[in-house]
Amino acid sequence: MIFITAKFRIKPEDADRWPEISREFTEATRGEPGCLWFDWSRSLDDPTEYVLVEAFRDGDAGAAHVQSEHFKTAQKTIPPHLVSTPKIVNFAVDQDDWSELGEMAVE
Amino acid sequence: MIFITAKFRIKPEDADRWPEISREFTEATRGEPGCLWFDWSRSLDDPTEYVLVEAFRDGDAGAAHVQSEHFKTAQKTIPPHLVSTPKIVNFAVDQDDWSELGEMAVE
Repeated sequence: MIFITAKFRIKPEDADRWPEISREFTEATRGEPGCLWFDWSRSLDDPTEYVLVEAFRDGDAGAAHVQSEHFKTAQKTIPPHLVSTPKIVNFAVDQDDWSELGEMAVE
Repeated sequence: MIFITAKFRIKPEDADRWPEISREFTEATRGEPGCLWFDWSRSLDDPTEYVLVEAFRDGDAGAAHVQSEHFKTAQKTIPPHLVSTPKIVNFAVDQDDWSELGEMAVE
């Protein structure tokens, strides 16, 4: 899978509305056949920062995502709400789901 | 760097206190010389789920983390607050910081 973690710094005046602002893009992406997950969380340290954890089945699915109409729309509608260019770490991994953190196993 | 994204499902009765419950472990880990970042965020879809995005300078720094006293302590103190074994995706990447998501560049 292509595993992606990104951080979005939202303008303070838009931070509380970010779930709503990003909803259309989120739902459209989750609807893509190659999207494994596309999940947002809100930073504990900085409430204007949202973390996006995404995964796509393979490179083709990742390419389909960035070539989709909803991605192109988001490229216009999302940046105006951001303080800075989002940060990202992404790579291909030889697994298609999460692993278990055995060191913190729950019996 | 060793880049790690993990998801922790917290018992509902402990979910709001999770920042406090995890504080000691978080601060000790951030104090490790090889820790680049160790940041929590709270899921928008499921408020009992917290996402942890961590990075360690290299394999040795990652090993030092899991062999540390505070990690061993956390292995006892954290699981009792969890619903299930945490999920994780981790791997070594040939970079030591975040990249920029150019497709959503903020001018």
